[in-house]
Amino acid sequence: MSVRKGFCDLGFAKLDTDRKRRKGFAEVVYSPGKDKKHLKKIAQKIINLKEDLLLTKLDKETFSFLNKSIPVLRYNPLAKIGYFLAKPKKSFKGRVLVISAGTSDIAIAEEASQTLEVMGNRVDKLYDVGVAGVHRLMSNVNKIKKAKVIIVVAGMEGALASLVSGLAKSPVIAVPTSCGYGSSFSGLAALLSMLNGCSPGVTVVNIDNGFGAGYFASLINNTPR
Amino acid sequence: MSVRKGFCDLGFAKLDTDRKRRKGFAEVVYSPGKDKKHLKKIAQKIINLKEDLLLTKLDKETFSFLNKSIPVLRYNPLAKIGYFLAKPKKSFKGRVLVISAGTSDIAIAEEASQTLEVMGNRVDKLYDVGVAGVHRLMSNVNKIKKAKVIIVVAGMEGALASLVSGLAKSPVIAVPTSCGYGSSFSGLAALLSMLNGCSPGVTVVNIDNGFGAGYFASLINNTPR
Amino acid sequence: MSVRKGFCDLGFAKLDTDRKRRKGFAEVVYSPGKDKKHLKKIAQKIINLKEDLLLTKLDKETFSFLNKSIPVLRYNPLAKIGYFLAKPKKSFKGRVLVISAGTSDIAIAEEASQTLEVMGNRVDKLYDVGVAGVHRLMSNVNKIKKAKVIIVVAGMEGALASLVSGLAKSPVIAVPTSCGYGSSFSGLAALLSMLNGCSPGVTVVNIDNGFGAGYFASLINNTPR
Amino acid sequence: MSVRKGFCDLGFAKLDTDRKRRKGFAEVVYSPGKDKKHLKKIAQKIINLKEDLLLTKLDKETFSFLNKSIPVLRYNPLAKIGYFLAKPKKSFKGRVLVISAGTSDIAIAEEASQTLEVMGNRVDKLYDVGVAGVHRLMSNVNKIKKAKVIIVVAGMEGALASLVSGLAKSPVIAVPTSCGYGSSFSGLAALLSMLNGCSPGVTVVNIDNGFGAGYFASLINNTPR
Amino acid sequence: MSVRKGFCDLGFAKLDTDRKRRKGFAEVVYSPGKDKKHLKKIAQKIINLKEDLLLTKLDKETFSFLNKSIPVLRYNPLAKIGYFLAKPKKSFKGRVLVISAGTSDIAIAEEASQTLEVMGNRVDKLYDVGVAGVHRLMSNVNKIKKAKVIIVVAGMEGALASLVSGLAKSPVIAVPTSCGYGSSFSGLAALLSMLNGCSPGVTVVNIDNGFGAGYFASLINNTPR
Amino acid sequence: MSVRKGFCDLGFAKLDTDRKRRKGFAEVVYSPGKDKKHLKKIAQKIINLKEDLLLTKLDKETFSFLNKSIPVLRYNPLAKIGYFLAKPKKSFKGRVLVISAGTSDIAIAEEASQTLEVMGNRVDKLYDVGVAGVHRLMSNVNKIKKAKVIIVVAGMEGALASLVSGLAKSPVIAVPTSCGYGSSFSGLAALLSMLNGCSPGVTVVNIDNGFGAGYFASLINNTPR
Amino acid sequence: MSVRKGFCDLGFAKLDTDRKRRKGFAEVVYSPGKDKKHLKKIAQKIINLKEDLLLTKLDKETFSFLNKSIPVLRYNPLAKIGYFLAKPKKSFKGRVLVISAGTSDIAIAEEASQTLEVMGNRVDKLYDVGVAGVHRLMSNVNKIKKAKVIIVVAGMEGALASLVSGLAKSPVIAVPTSCGYGSSFSGLAALLSMLNGCSPGVTVVNIDNGFGAGYFASLINNTPR
Amino acid sequence: MSVRKGFCDLGFAKLDTDRKRRKGFAEVVYSPGKDKKHLKKIAQKIINLKEDLLLTKLDKETFSFLNKSIPVLRYNPLAKIGYFLAKPKKSFKGRVLVISAGTSDIAIAEEASQTLEVMGNRVDKLYDVGVAGVHRLMSNVNKIKKAKVIIVVAGMEGALASLVSGLAKSPVIAVPTSCGYGSSFSGLAALLSMLNGCSPGVTVVNIDNGFGAGYFASLINNTPR
Repeated sequence: MSVRKGFCDLGFAKLDTDRKRRKGFAEVVYSPGKDKKHLKKIAQKIINLKEDLLLTKLDKETFSFLNKSIPVLRYNPLAKIGYFLAKPKKSFKGRVLVISAGTSDIAIAEEASQTLEVMGNRVDKLYDVGVAGVHRLMSNVNKIKKAKVIIVVAGMEGALASLVSGLAKSPVIAVPTSCGYGSSFSGLAALLSMLNGCSPGVTVVNIDNGFGAGYFASLINNTPR
Repeated sequence: MSVRKGFCDLGFAKLDTDRKRRKGFAEVVYSPGKDKKHLKKIAQKIINLKEDLLLTKLDKETFSFLNKSIPVLRYNPLAKIGYFLAKPKKSFKGRVLVISAGTSDIAIAEEASQTLEVMGNRVDKLYDVGVAGVHRLMSNVNKIKKAKVIIVVAGMEGALASLVSGLAKSPVIAVPTSCGYGSSFSGLAALLSMLNGCSPGVTVVNIDNGFGAGYFASLINNTPR
Repeated sequence: MSVRKGFCDLGFAKLDTDRKRRKGFAEVVYSPGKDKKHLKKIAQKIINLKEDLLLTKLDKETFSFLNKSIPVLRYNPLAKIGYFLAKPKKSFKGRVLVISAGTSDIAIAEEASQTLEVMGNRVDKLYDVGVAGVHRLMSNVNKIKKAKVIIVVAGMEGALASLVSGLAKSPVIAVPTSCGYGSSFSGLAALLSMLNGCSPGVTVVNIDNGFGAGYFASLINNTPR
Repeated sequence: MSVRKGFCDLGFAKLDTDRKRRKGFAEVVYSPGKDKKHLKKIAQKIINLKEDLLLTKLDKETFSFLNKSIPVLRYNPLAKIGYFLAKPKKSFKGRVLVISAGTSDIAIAEEASQTLEVMGNRVDKLYDVGVAGVHRLMSNVNKIKKAKVIIVVAGMEGALASLVSGLAKSPVIAVPTSCGYGSSFSGLAALLSMLNGCSPGVTVVNIDNGFGAGYFASLINNTPR
Repeated sequence: MSVRKGFCDLGFAKLDTDRKRRKGFAEVVYSPGKDKKHLKKIAQKIINLKEDLLLTKLDKETFSFLNKSIPVLRYNPLAKIGYFLAKPKKSFKGRVLVISAGTSDIAIAEEASQTLEVMGNRVDKLYDVGVAGVHRLMSNVNKIKKAKVIIVVAGMEGALASLVSGLAKSPVIAVPTSCGYGSSFSGLAALLSMLNGCSPGVTVVNIDNGFGAGYFASLINNTPR
Repeated sequence: MSVRKGFCDLGFAKLDTDRKRRKGFAEVVYSPGKDKKHLKKIAQKIINLKEDLLLTKLDKETFSFLNKSIPVLRYNPLAKIGYFLAKPKKSFKGRVLVISAGTSDIAIAEEASQTLEVMGNRVDKLYDVGVAGVHRLMSNVNKIKKAKVIIVVAGMEGALASLVSGLAKSPVIAVPTSCGYGSSFSGLAALLSMLNGCSPGVTVVNIDNGFGAGYFASLINNTPR
Repeated sequence: MSVRKGFCDLGFAKLDTDRKRRKGFAEVVYSPGKDKKHLKKIAQKIINLKEDLLLTKLDKETFSFLNKSIPVLRYNPLAKIGYFLAKPKKSFKGRVLVISAGTSDIAIAEEASQTLEVMGNRVDKLYDVGVAGVHRLMSNVNKIKKAKVIIVVAGMEGALASLVSGLAKSPVIAVPTSCGYGSSFSGLAALLSMLNGCSPGVTVVNIDNGFGAGYFASLINNTPR
Repeated sequence: MSVRKGFCDLGFAKLDTDRKRRKGFAEVVYSPGKDKKHLKKIAQKIINLKEDLLLTKLDKETFSFLNKSIPVLRYNPLAKIGYFLAKPKKSFKGRVLVISAGTSDIAIAEEASQTLEVMGNRVDKLYDVGVAGVHRLMSNVNKIKKAKVIIVVAGMEGALASLVSGLAKSPVIAVPTSCGYGSSFSGLAALLSMLNGCSPGVTVVNIDNGFGAGYFASLINNTPR
C-alpha cells in the first residue's frame, strides 16, 4: 500500500494522503452508506498515517463499533462527529460565531462548532435567537460585530441568515436545516430562502451540512492577508 | 336574464348577484384569460346592477378597450386594478398597514392597498423596509403596534413576514411575490418561507395575490365584536 | 438567568419572556427535534415564570417523560398538544368554527381546537362535511353564517376551503393536511389547492399546522374594533 | 404510398389508416411543433382517404395557411380545432354535459365540446358555475342528473370536479386548466387537486386537454350495453 | 342519530346515508389516518343501515381489530380491501378487463378487481404483460377487443396504458403505481407518462388508486344507453 | 496563441485542441448564450486548425451572421446544426437506426441524424412510429433487428423507448423531447418515463439532446472489437 | 403451461421465454414488491427452463427464503443480486471498467460489476476516485484509455461522469446513486448533473440502477463489428 | 428627507444610508421590477450622498434612460452592471480568481469580476476551463494555488466547483448559471450539483448571482487577521 502517488490504495478505497498538503486538512470521512469494516480500516489507516481524523454524520452505534478497535477515537454525540487529533493545534486569531435560530437546530450548529474546534478555531455560540423574538438577537449585536466569520444555522423559513447579514460586516455562511414539517420539505424552504436572501454577504451550504459550514469558516478564519 | 336564483346568466357566464348579500362584497372579476368582449359584458352588467366592480390583474391595453364603452371605469396602473364604486363607502374604524420589503414589490403592495381602499379601509403604507436594513423597520415599530391588521408583501426570501409578526399583536397576512430570479422560482422561495415562518400569527395567500390579502384584511378589519 | 432584556438565557435556549407583552401570548414551544432534557427545562422555566405553556406536536412518549417532573402538565393525545394554563381565561365573545373535511383530518382539527381553547376562544366543531356529500355542509350553513372566524381542515384535494368561503362572510383560514396518498405528495395537493382557491376571503397555513390556524383565528376573534 | 400495412408512409410521417377500424375514429393530429408543409400534406392525405379530420391546438395563423390549399377545412377559433367531416354522423342517444368553473376556462371547455360534436355527440354546456357561488351549480343539479357523461373543466384549485362528482351518478372526466397564476404552476394545482378528489367516480386527463376529455366521453357515450 | 337530512351524525363523522340514492353506491371508507374506534363505529353503522361496506387501504392488523366485533366483515389481503355485501348483486352485462404490467403491480390490480366484483362486475385479468415483452400482450389482443372497459395498472414508466389504448376501442383507465425506485419518485414517472399518452381514449386516476379505477370502470359498465 | 498545452487560448475561450486525439472527435460548440463575435472567432479558429466543426442548437439568424465571414460553413436548419468537415470520412461498417415517435419530434431526430452523418455513420430513419399505432413499428421489426445501435426520439409519454428495447438486441439510446404540453413539463414526463423503462438495454440523454445521442451512438458504432 | 407463444403463463406472471432469442439474455427479475411465493415460482421456472437467472435488488431475507427451495441460487449481498448461470459463458474480448466516486457508492458499483460478470464480461474496478482528489483518477488514466466501455457510479454531485468522459474515447454510462443527504434529494442532484454533463459521450440510467448500466455496457461490449 | 435614523425616506423607498458604516459598502440596487423613475431617483440620491453606486441586472435600455440624467453613471454591458465610484479605492492585497466553465457563462463571471473591481479587489480571470478538457484547468493549477479567494462560475452540470475545490487551499464560492437546456431546469442542475459537492471548502450563491459571489469574495479578501 504505497502512498507515493498521493493516495493510499485500500482496494475498496483510495485514501487521499496528499489532501493535507494540498488543502490544509486531511481527508474527512462521510460515514453513512459505508460498510462498517471499510470504515474501520479507513479510520485506522488515517490514524496510522498520523493525520487528523474527522468522521461526519457518524451514528452512535457505528461509533461504538469503531471505538472497540480504536480507543483513541472521540465522539460528540450531539454533533454526530467522531474525531482524533494527531497533535494539538494552535488556534487562529479570529473568532467564529455560530448562531442557531432555534433549539431544534442545535445538533447541526454543534456539528459546525465541533468541526471548527477540531480545525483549530475559537468558537462563540449564540443559540435560539430566531426572528420570532428579534430582541434576543439585537441584544447580541456586539457579538455579531466582533466575529471574523459567522455561521447561521436555521430551519423552517431560514429568515435569520438575511437578518444577521444585514447587521454584519463579516461574511455569513448559512446552513439550512431539515427542522420543520409540511411544506418545509425537509429543509427545502430554508435552503431556497437562504439562497434568495436580500442582503449581500451570504453564501449557502447543503441542508444540514454543519460540517461544510464549519470547514469553510475555518478557511476564511485562516486566510492570510 | 333573470337574477331570481341569485345569479345572472349571460350564457358564457353566470354573474353571482347574490355575492354581496352572502359575502359582503360583490363578485370580483379575475381578468386574464377572458375574451375581451366577455369581459366588457360582465363589467357592464355589474355596473348596471349597481354593484361595486373590481377587475384584478387588468393590463393597460384591456383597460383601454373597456374604458371606451365604460367611461366610469377607473384604473390604477401600478396595481393593475380597474374599479367602479356604486356609491361612496364609510370607512371602517381600524387601520390596515401594508408593508413591502423592497421597491420591486410595490406593484403587489399597491394591489392590496387599492383593494383595501375600494372595500372601505383606511390604509397606511410602509414600503422598502426589508431585513437587509432592519433599522428601517425598527424605526416604525409604532406603526406596527397601532395597525389592526398587517399585510406584508415580500419576494426573494420573504423573511420580512416572520420578523414583522414577531413584533406585532395583530394578525399578519403574508403575500409572497415573484420578485427575484434563479432559485426564487418565480416566488416559490418566498411562498415556502412564509408558510414555514417560526413566528405564529401569520397566514399566507398565493404568490402575487395582493388582491386576496387586501380582501382578507378587510374582512378582519370589518369583523364585528 | 436574568430576564431583564426580555428573554431568559438557558444557554441552549433564550426564552422570549417578552412575548406575552409584545404579542399577547407567551412563547409556544415546537417539540420535535429538541433534546428531551432541553424540553423539560424550557417547560419548567415557562411554568415558573407563571406563563401559559403550549407544547405542539408533542408525542405521547415525550409527554410521559415530561409529565414525571411536571405533573401539572396536561395532554391532548389526539391534538398532540401539551399545555398548562397559568390562570383561567375569560372567553372572547365571538365563536370560532372548526370544520374538517373527513375523519382522517380530525387530529389536525383538534390541534386547532385545543389551541383555540387554551387561548380563550369558544369553539364549535363541524367534522366530516367534505364535498363528496355536500348536503352535510349545506345542512349546516347557519353555523357557517354565525361564526366570527372559520377554520377549514382538509387533506386530499382540499376543495372544502373554497366551498365554505363561498358561503361565508367571515374570514376562512385553510389548513391543508397530509391525509391522502400518491400524488397528494404529503399534503402538497391540498396546499396548492387552497392557495389557488377561486373564492376570496381565504388564507392558508402550513400543511398540518392546526396550531397556526388556531392561533391566527384567536387573533382575529380577539381583534378590538 | 401503400396503405396495405394499415398505415400510409409519407416519409416524415406514417398515417395510421387502420385507426378507424381499430379504435372507431381516424387518427387525430396534434398540430404544435410540426412543420407547416408536413401538416398540410397530412391533412390533405386524410381528406383524400375520406376519413374525418381533427387538428387540435391549431393556431389561427396555421389554420389560415392550411385553409388556402384545403378550403373544406373548418375552424373553431375558441377551441383551436380545425376539422373536416367526411360524412354526416348520426348522434349517439346519450347527452354529454360540459361544465366549466369560470369564464377563463371556456376555451378548453369548447375544445371538449367541439371534439364531442365532431364525434357525433349531443352536448349540453353549463359554464361559469365554480364553487365560489355554489348556488349556480345547485340550480342546475337536474342537468347533472340527466347527463350520461360529464366533463368538468376547471383551473385554479379545480375543486369543482369533486363537488360535481358528489352529486352525479354518471362518470365525471376532469380537465385541469392552466388558468391561474403564482402557485397554480400552470395547472399543476388543479391537476393534483383533481387526482386527489375525495369523491369516487372521477378520472383525469392532462392539463388543458379538452380534446382528450371529449374523446373519452364520446367512448363512454358510445359504449354498447 | 337521525338520517333525515341524508346523513347520520356520529359526532366525529357524518355518514352520507344518501350516497346510494345519489351516486348508486354507498359511502366508501378510506381507512388510513382514522382512529380505530372511529373506524369500527363507522363500519358497524353502515352494516346496520343495510348498506354495502367497502374499506379501502385497510391493513391486516386493523382488519383483525375490526373483525373481532364485526365477524361478517371479509378481507382481501392482497387488495387491502375489507368488505361486506348487504345483499347479492346481479352482474352487469359487460366485462371489465384488468391488465397489469408486472407482477409487482398485482396488489393494485387486485384492488381494482375486488372493487369491481363488490360493485357487481364481471372481471377478466391479464397480468404481467408489460412492454418489455410485447408479444405477451399481442397474444391477448382478442381480450382487449372484447372488453367493455379496460383498466391498465403499471408502475415504472407506465408505457402500457398508451400501448393498450392504441389497440382498444373501449375506454382505458390508467392506474400508475408506486412500483419502481430512484427517479420513479414513488409513481410520479408513471403518472406523468399516463397523463401525456399519445393515444386518445385514456384517463388517469391517482397513483396506487386501484379502487378509484375500479369504481369508475363500474360506472361505465353500468352506463345505460 | 500557442496550442502546445493541448488548448488554444483566445482569452475568452480555451479551445481544446487535444480533444480529437483524446476523444476521437474535435471540440463541439454549444451555440446558445455565446457572444456572436466570440462564436465567430471560435468557429474560424477550429477551421484554421483543420478540425471538423460542429455547432449545435444554432439558430438561423446566428448562422447567417457566421456564414458571411465563414462561407464554407454548412447548415441543417431542421437539426439546427452548423458544420464543416475538414476532410471526407470513411463510414463505419454498422448502421444506426434513428426512430421518432411522432412528426413533432423530427427536429431532434434530425439533430441526432446530422450528428451521426458528420461523424461518419450510416443512418437509417424510421419516423412517426409511436405506440398509438403500434403496427407501424411492428411492420419494421426487421430494421430494428438489423441496426447496430438504435436511437429513439420521443416526447409526450416517451413509451416508445421501452417498446423498441423489448424488440431489440442492440443498445437503445433514448432522447426525451420537449414535445407536449401541460404535465409534460417541457419533456420531464418523457425523461422520467425513459429513465424508468421496464426493459433493460436503454440509456438516456438530456431532453432534446439529439446531438448527445448521435455522438454516443457513433462511439458504439465505432467500438473496435 | 405452454411456452409456444414465447411466454410461460403462471397466471400471476407471464415469463418471457422468448427474451433470450430476442434480446440475447433471459428475462431479468426485479424483486421488490413481489409476493415471496410468486418470486419463488418465477425463479424455479426460469431455472427449469435452463435459462440464466438474475434477481435484482434482492434483500438478504428474501434470498434466504428462496435459497431453501433453490439451493443452486447464489447471492452477492453487497450487490443485492441473486443469480444462477445455466451454463458457463465465454467472455467477450473487451474489458469494462467500473469506476466509483466514493466508498459509499460501492454497493451500486458492485451491482453493475456482478451483472457484467453474469453476462460474460471481463470487469476492471477503479473505486473511490472522486473529484475531491483528482490525482487518484489521473494516476489511472491508462485504465480509462484501455477500457472498451466505462461505467461511472457517483452520488452527491455526480461530477465524476463528466470528468471521466473528458478523458475517454470509449462510451461512458453514468449511474447516479442516492448517496448523499439534504438537497441531493435521494440522487436527484447526481441524476440532473449527469444528464447535463458538458462532455459528450455520456448516457445515463436511473438512480441506483447498477444493473441497467451493467446490462447496457455488456450490449456494447458484445457489439459485433 | 432626513437620514438621521440611518435611512433616507423617498416614500416609495427607504435608502439604507447606514449600510456603509454597518456593512462596509453602500446599499446595492437590484434593478429588475422597479419603476424607471423610482430607479432614477434612487440612483441620484445615492450619488448625491457621495456613496458608491452599484446597479445589478441592469438592462441596456434602462441604463440609457438613467444615463441621460446621470451622465457619470458607467455601464458594463456584459456584466449588466451600472456603477459609479464616489472616490478611488485602494486595492486589497489578495487576489481573487474568477473561473468560468464555458464561454456561455462569461456574462455571470463578468458580473462577479465587475463587482469585485468596484469593491476594490484585484481580479484574475480563468475562463473556459470546464471539465470536458481538464488539462486546461490543470495547466493553471498555479493560479488556483495563488488566489486568496476563488469564484467558480458554471452552468450545465456545475462539476467544475468540486474539481477546483479539490485543488485549492482557498475558499471556493460557486455560482451556478442558467446556461443549459432541458433538465438543467434553468440552473437547478448546477445549483444542486454545487450544493452536494464532495470536496469541502465550497459554498454556493443563487443561480446567476455573480454579484453575490463577488461581494462575498470581497468580504473574505478584506478580512483582517
